[in-house]
Amino acid sequence: MKIIIDGLGRMGGQIAEKLLADGHEVVAHNRSTEAIDEMVTLGAIGAYTKQEAVDAFDGDPIVVWIMIPAAVIDAAVDEWATLAPEDSIIIDGGNSDYRGDAARAERVASHGSVLMDIGTSGGVHGMKRGFCMMVGGARAQYEQLSPLLDTLATPTGAHNYFGPNGAGHYVKMVHNAIEYGMMQSLAEGYRMLKEGPIADIDLARAGEVWQHSSVITSWLNELSAEALEESPELEGIDGVVAESGEARWTLETAKDLGIPLPAIQASFDVRLASQQGEVDFSTKLLAAMRNKFGGHDINGKQ
Amino acid sequence: MKIIIDGLGRMGGQIAEKLLADGHEVVAHNRSTEAIDEMVTLGAIGAYTKQEAVDAFDGDPIVVWIMIPAAVIDAAVDEWATLAPEDSIIIDGGNSDYRGDAARAERVASHGSVLMDIGTSGGVHGMKRGFCMMVGGARAQYEQLSPLLDTLATPTGAHNYFGPNGAGHYVKMVHNAIEYGMMQSLAEGYRMLKEGPIADIDLARAGEVWQHSSVITSWLNELSAEALEESPELEGIDGVVAESGEARWTLETAKDLGIPLPAIQASFDVRLASQQGEVDFSTKLLAAMRNKFGGHDINGKQ
Repeated sequence: MKIIIDGLGRMGGQIAEKLLADGHEVVAHNRSTEAIDEMVTLGAIGAYTKQEAVDAFDGDPIVVWIMIPAAVIDAAVDEWATLAPEDSIIIDGGNSDYRGDAARAERVASHGSVLMDIGTSGGVHGMKRGFCMMVGGARAQYEQLSPLLDTLATPTGAHNYFGPNGAGHYVKMVHNAIEYGMMQSLAEGYRMLKEGPIADIDLARAGEVWQHSSVITSWLNELSAEALEESPELEGIDGVVAESGEARWTLETAKDLGIPLPAIQASFDVRLASQQGEVDFSTKLLAAMRNKFGGHDINGKQ
Repeated sequence: MKIIIDGLGRMGGQIAEKLLADGHEVVAHNRSTEAIDEMVTLGAIGAYTKQEAVDAFDGDPIVVWIMIPAAVIDAAVDEWATLAPEDSIIIDGGNSDYRGDAARAERVASHGSVLMDIGTSGGVHGMKRGFCMMVGGARAQYEQLSPLLDTLATPTGAHNYFGPNGAGHYVKMVHNAIEYGMMQSLAEGYRMLKEGPIADIDLARAGEVWQHSSVITSWLNELSAEALEESPELEGIDGVVAESGEARWTLETAKDLGIPLPAIQASFDVRLASQQGEVDFSTKLLAAMRNKFGGHDINGKQ
């Protein structure tokens, strides 16, 4: 299929590359031009403006995958909807707030096109492992997109459909809230190994053995063990951990519904406190995990 | 090797069977005799008293793997130490409190034998998947036991050595505390899918897609998805969740050290509250997970 990728950052770049490698026609667009040039060398059609990207479809409906920060999604969706011919498909693959999806979808519909929300997990490993994609929107368009999604899921990823607009982002948001809690649980445990009453426990060795059919076997534990193998003291990590919205939105939604989420709340609070200077070995390990799975700066706000 | 298994319950029975299947000589002992008779039909030597078990070694030093509840470990260790010839190896494979290991080891040493603590994870799946074993005690005896541990780890389990007496149980205790937090995080997330603002999200489908290269891919999520596939409403589960000591001991140790464990504490508190009647979909899922990995009664205190 032919598709525009708008936003060639850590994940958008991998999505574009993965589609190109499987023979799809990729039109590459990005705010800064260097990433476009790079994608052109890999075989993409470069589009330095949105209009150029639309023109590459010769008046046919477009498919565009937007992979940009949640803060700027409204403007981008509206701009694509305005430029796109009727019956186009606009995919929001980023971590946008599900509470805005219905309104965005209505605005897109007013231009005769369809918005799909596709929550995308897999971090910077998606190129090699395949992405895990949670889809919301119209089922017909989901089926139409399946050749693209099949490529992006190869070899060990997957995609599935969860309901109308918002469902994809909602399932992804809850996934990320669970992620906060699992990361925090591991971080607390490893700190107890390091600072506990038994001297000289080898943390990486514990993590490695736990990856062998223990109850906590998990990708996050595997990444923790890798980080601790590379740097047992997690040197050079300041332990300030960013939060990127999804756990906060989950907690807001839970509060509206009267559902207590004590482990997720505790995990979120630890990140906020880390930004106020409450850092320790466990928050350093959180930062190391985020760096491992998402390529997030190990020190910094991203 | 020749080994006595004392305690043929859910995990002890699997350990005995797995060793027998790989050609080890197993002497089967248990409080009630039915389990011994059953193990004899699988090729074990039955021992209806501890003395009979020791006699099966013809005066040679014994190796005994004790797999019994923490509440009765002191008496059992002392009894074996008294009966065993010098240079015997007494293995405590259960979830005993690490804070008692040094004293138990000293008492065993006073009889000329050696105590090893081997924290064992893998639940009722150890027979098929292999056990994950965390070993504390003397390194020489760890190496002596490696043929047994290699058998028990086959095919995807593992074993490793973590330090002097207490280290094995300590690493296993922390593992279980992490397990509490990971379970709670998943349970909270699935409740948000079920009771959230988006109708009719298929929880088992979400769990299944999350097992495909998402950041939260884990054995506990796999078991959650299985439970929700079998029974989307988790019918017939009362949602009262037992705690078996390890998270409590971890929290006690952390308090002594001044280390905050907010996610693990929250997870522990939810289990206590469930025993006071605060049950909901998330605590039902906790019970379902425990049943899946450990064969624990889905309703009840075990």
